[in-house]
Amino acid sequence: MNTPRDPNFAARVRKSFAQQGFMTLLGAELVSVEPGVVEISLPLRPELSQQHGYAHAGAAWSIADSAAGYAAMSLMAPGDGVLTVEMKINLLAPAAGDRLRAVGRVERSGRRLTVVKADVFAEEADKSTHVATTLGTMMTMPGMEEPG
Amino acid sequence: MNTPRDPNFAARVRKSFAQQGFMTLLGAELVSVEPGVVEISLPLRPELSQQHGYAHAGAAWSIADSAAGYAAMSLMAPGDGVLTVEMKINLLAPAAGDRLRAVGRVERSGRRLTVVKADVFAEEADKSTHVATTLGTMMTMPGMEEPG
Amino acid sequence: MNTPRDPNFAARVRKSFAQQGFMTLLGAELVSVEPGVVEISLPLRPELSQQHGYAHAGAAWSIADSAAGYAAMSLMAPGDGVLTVEMKINLLAPAAGDRLRAVGRVERSGRRLTVVKADVFAEEADKSTHVATTLGTMMTMPGMEEPG
Amino acid sequence: MNTPRDPNFAARVRKSFAQQGFMTLLGAELVSVEPGVVEISLPLRPELSQQHGYAHAGAAWSIADSAAGYAAMSLMAPGDGVLTVEMKINLLAPAAGDRLRAVGRVERSGRRLTVVKADVFAEEADKSTHVATTLGTMMTMPGMEEPG
Repeated sequence: MNTPRDPNFAARVRKSFAQQGFMTLLGAELVSVEPGVVEISLPLRPELSQQHGYAHAGAAWSIADSAAGYAAMSLMAPGDGVLTVEMKINLLAPAAGDRLRAVGRVERSGRRLTVVKADVFAEEADKSTHVATTLGTMMTMPGMEEPG
Repeated sequence: MNTPRDPNFAARVRKSFAQQGFMTLLGAELVSVEPGVVEISLPLRPELSQQHGYAHAGAAWSIADSAAGYAAMSLMAPGDGVLTVEMKINLLAPAAGDRLRAVGRVERSGRRLTVVKADVFAEEADKSTHVATTLGTMMTMPGMEEPG
Repeated sequence: MNTPRDPNFAARVRKSFAQQGFMTLLGAELVSVEPGVVEISLPLRPELSQQHGYAHAGAAWSIADSAAGYAAMSLMAPGDGVLTVEMKINLLAPAAGDRLRAVGRVERSGRRLTVVKADVFAEEADKSTHVATTLGTMMTMPGMEEPG
Repeated sequence: MNTPRDPNFAARVRKSFAQQGFMTLLGAELVSVEPGVVEISLPLRPELSQQHGYAHAGAAWSIADSAAGYAAMSLMAPGDGVLTVEMKINLLAPAAGDRLRAVGRVERSGRRLTVVKADVFAEEADKSTHVATTLGTMMTMPGMEEPG
């Protein structure tokens, strides 16, 4: 079902991710790019915290958004760019540990719109806690792969 | 309608905001704290961008979340902390300009749950563009104002 | 801002509403159609209730969806149809009274996608309670006005 | 993980479902009640349609909401009632066929709040199409099982 239209999809996603200054500011790393599934890791540090010392929900939302967006892009045609239409996050547990891990997945890929989901886990040693889940919509931007 | 239960609400919100390492990392500033309405400003710079050079949706979501959360907290009793239950953002336009401005508002304040909205604007000179709108739920955490 | 592209927009919306068997089953009435703003009324009766005797959230969601969708359609070109992409509802208070009233509004109208909001009120005599608020996305379906 | 606190959970859910006048109006049937998973079926007929003849998104949302809410209730203590806080639906495909089937699941069960998901399928003979997915929050209402 999730056959990529572009055999070069992983390189395109990696190149685009490298252009996101915000992912660099956060310290996020692109872990893996499979057709319709993208994983991002974010080592936790005090600069990512909210007022109680846990990771800010914005950090979780941001890597979930990028993981889900690039999962959508991995199935798009060469040259197509991706834009977030909307995304909702539900927080499941306080996020603490060594790192956050976001797994973005394509739920349904359409010509214009792609419905995506992402799950975020807080990880420490061999423990993984499901801390957030998201549901959103991505839009295909024909010919918008390259920054303007 | 939005009568604060704590006359000291603004100082509490400012103190909590200052403890959010993530807002400091982003460079966000707390502009104003009124009962049920909180405003945050975020000067834009390349470190906040996505792959096309616009502000990353995660930056918009993050200040919208903090503005909405603190709008909720501004109506809570002394000692109460706030936690995001869920929040959805719809992106309305690409975010470019000198800064983002998020205005969070309480839609309905309950004992446990507060329904909140936030709008995000991209501003440049005397031009303001509505770039995102959010709808979410905040939870009252009795006795959780202070970080653990 | 909300200038209709089709001077005949109100008649088109009314015709389409009359084709929604579901609105008839619910007993919903189209109250008013302005450019970008549509109002629907739903007299309450036991058949619309959930287990505690209040109106089922599904009744509120349904008229909010139709009001918001037709608000979007009111700004579309002749022949264009409307389809719901996604919509989120937050319930603010139990819905009881003589009727529900949904007011759908266009937040931002794009070529393909329209961001919409709707508010739902429970009304009784001269009392109106804000019971729900929604935020969603509608899609323009070129040439899909008429049922297939 | 999903161990019911009340061995009588299925009977409680069935009794509450039978009190939802709205489910009766729609013609929905409670198919199965497992701990944390509830399934509802809705035979399609013209009275459930939108303007293009497909099932109205409100019908899908409504059975998804009831399935998800009762999935949450199936894990609650005796006497506890359930209330929808918020729920978002993304429509994946036009809903046509003999019936809709909603499967509601508990994603995370907390003391006050339960995060839930539901998927809706349109079915015809041996064909099943995934037409909608939802993500929402349910609230535990202590002692509110019985209608007031």
